[in-house]
Amino acid sequence: MDTNLVQDDAKLRARRFLDSCGGSVGVYSQSTGVEVVREDVAQYIKQRDQLSANPQNIFLSNGASEAVKSILQLISTGEDGSKRSGIMVPIPQYPLYSATNAEYNAYQIDYYLDESNGWDLSIEQLEEALKKCDDKCIPRALVVINPGNPTGQLLSKDTITNVLKFAYKHNLVVLADEVYQHNIYSPDSRFISFKRALYDIGGRISNELQLASFMSCSKGYMGECGLRGGYCELVNFPEDVQQQLYKSLSARLCSSLLGQLTMDVVVNPPKPHESSYNSFMKEKSSVLEELKQKAELTTKSLNSLQGFSCNPITGAMYAFPRIDLPRKAIEIAKSKGMQPDFMYCLEFLEEYGVCVVPGSGFGQVPGTWHFRITILPSIEEMKLVMDYLKEFHTSFLTKYS
Amino acid sequence: MDTNLVQDDAKLRARRFLDSCGGSVGVYSQSTGVEVVREDVAQYIKQRDQLSANPQNIFLSNGASEAVKSILQLISTGEDGSKRSGIMVPIPQYPLYSATNAEYNAYQIDYYLDESNGWDLSIEQLEEALKKCDDKCIPRALVVINPGNPTGQLLSKDTITNVLKFAYKHNLVVLADEVYQHNIYSPDSRFISFKRALYDIGGRISNELQLASFMSCSKGYMGECGLRGGYCELVNFPEDVQQQLYKSLSARLCSSLLGQLTMDVVVNPPKPHESSYNSFMKEKSSVLEELKQKAELTTKSLNSLQGFSCNPITGAMYAFPRIDLPRKAIEIAKSKGMQPDFMYCLEFLEEYGVCVVPGSGFGQVPGTWHFRITILPSIEEMKLVMDYLKEFHTSFLTKYS
Repeated sequence: MDTNLVQDDAKLRARRFLDSCGGSVGVYSQSTGVEVVREDVAQYIKQRDQLSANPQNIFLSNGASEAVKSILQLISTGEDGSKRSGIMVPIPQYPLYSATNAEYNAYQIDYYLDESNGWDLSIEQLEEALKKCDDKCIPRALVVINPGNPTGQLLSKDTITNVLKFAYKHNLVVLADEVYQHNIYSPDSRFISFKRALYDIGGRISNELQLASFMSCSKGYMGECGLRGGYCELVNFPEDVQQQLYKSLSARLCSSLLGQLTMDVVVNPPKPHESSYNSFMKEKSSVLEELKQKAELTTKSLNSLQGFSCNPITGAMYAFPRIDLPRKAIEIAKSKGMQPDFMYCLEFLEEYGVCVVPGSGFGQVPGTWHFRITILPSIEEMKLVMDYLKEFHTSFLTKYS
Repeated sequence: MDTNLVQDDAKLRARRFLDSCGGSVGVYSQSTGVEVVREDVAQYIKQRDQLSANPQNIFLSNGASEAVKSILQLISTGEDGSKRSGIMVPIPQYPLYSATNAEYNAYQIDYYLDESNGWDLSIEQLEEALKKCDDKCIPRALVVINPGNPTGQLLSKDTITNVLKFAYKHNLVVLADEVYQHNIYSPDSRFISFKRALYDIGGRISNELQLASFMSCSKGYMGECGLRGGYCELVNFPEDVQQQLYKSLSARLCSSLLGQLTMDVVVNPPKPHESSYNSFMKEKSSVLEELKQKAELTTKSLNSLQGFSCNPITGAMYAFPRIDLPRKAIEIAKSKGMQPDFMYCLEFLEEYGVCVVPGSGFGQVPGTWHFRITILPSIEEMKLVMDYLKEFHTSFLTKYS
């Protein structure tokens, strides 16, 4: 490697990071993360939301997953003998939430996203879900994934505002999983953070509602999953609760320093006057532009198949099409002790070598069947996958008709 | 950077690692870690213990801490309404254990190490501790730190064997924190792993006792804390329990790929025929030789102070001297709501800028006072620190006499 290949601004970033952590990535940092990274995260949030952010309210983590787990654990811990904590989770959901609730013995309150309305989040559905769980738990938190995983929708500001008002009314902490905030493909859509919407409500809600927002370097245009970088910003968390959380984080010492550095590069990208700006912007735009094309291609291809319906992928990296399965397929699957969509995905994998994930792993309205497919492979591969799927689906219908 | 500075064998190691994980450290790996690393860990254990090891029973983690927490969580989870799990923990202990037990609502069963006998672990003490906790919990696990933190002792094979028999008798899972296995300073001592001792017992114990052993790249001669590499080997864990553990690990996706790679370099160091062997061995030996000198220097200096007694540092990286504090100091500390050793350490920090950790943070026999001091700084710094301590201690005794 020629050192000249590394741009000056990249070297300065590395130097600044190293200066702030004793000159080596081999050291422990503060449990909440290296200070300059938390400052850069605060600056990033400030620029994104036009709102101040305090580095003291930000902690860095091994990917967003670790941060989500820490917050869920904090919320799920109760006195012996008290009722279980209730955590409201969208269905379909990213399984981190159901798995973590099971781990911490929290009571999961499922609320259904409205597939017929672009996977929107309806307040009536939230109220209904809360009513149903009465007495079984103490509802404590509401998880929202925006843009959605596996559902790919982007929530409007109105929806977010209503969700926040609902949470405030019921005294719920809001967990905003915003890891796909860079993955927006619709030209007339813009990512609005839960924090921004919260401040715009004003009054007591703005000053009192407790919000934890999560971000990662594994998604977006970055996709640096293996480096395990993430952060969480806490809004309106009481000082003593925050101290308790930070104390609990200190048991794991700190998150990966290289993950922290990666997060820093994400929140503090090259600026127009810096030498790596052009190549950075070129790569970022091309990745996002390709994802956008693949989002359109995938939705269009899926909707052209018999018995498929798929909402547009407005954000994130997945399509979650609904599939009508022949009655015979459903019966045979059940006789084999399998979910019908699981059998469908298994046969597709076995016959074409393509792995898609059955909807039953994410949750879905009973009696409906889905799968999740990512749009990450290249356009050429995605086209091939869509051809395979068409072939497979046609033969599947014939086989089970 | 000139690529020629990187030795060929290092390039081959990097290439082999990358080939096994899709060519990039930016990807997720299996939840338990990249396969070649787990194979190398198995090979390392095999060579260390002269016993076979199965990569399927090894999982990689963000430092040993994450692995310890996973196992404690697995063991502490009970049915609603059932008694709390009892976890036996040495006193003094590394606070990860007390913190994690508090986090998972486990009942901590303290057992005292025998300071008058080089911080040895006595079976009578274990039996007594277990008897005392009767009815308050269901004893499920026994934690042993060897070499000890903060106590610096190395357990003999006989002691380990007796501990294992005790654990088997009481149906306890053994957590062997062996992260300091490379830090042995006494020429007539050798690290014996719990696994090796377990197999040598033979019979049902060898085949049935459940053991989890932890290792890290943050200690030893490496000290690469910030990269967060660690592993855990499970011995005799039932298949279904192990599956449940691996399922729970999958919620956090995987540990840092660069941490995994670092762990790989630790367990698969340069071999005599490889080009980086000489420089590697030179650095390793010099780090360990210096630590040994500092271990001797520190113990000797501490024991020369009035009212100090310190067991030899046989292993790990710390001295844990006992200090007789003047009655007046004890009274004044208590009137300030402080532990006397905390006040001692605070005054040392304030007056000399040296941070040592009060024994009350690790636990100690009531009425005795200690602090933990690391031997990591350079010899010159350690000498200076010892001079400072002598000055401080003399004036402390005068002040409170």
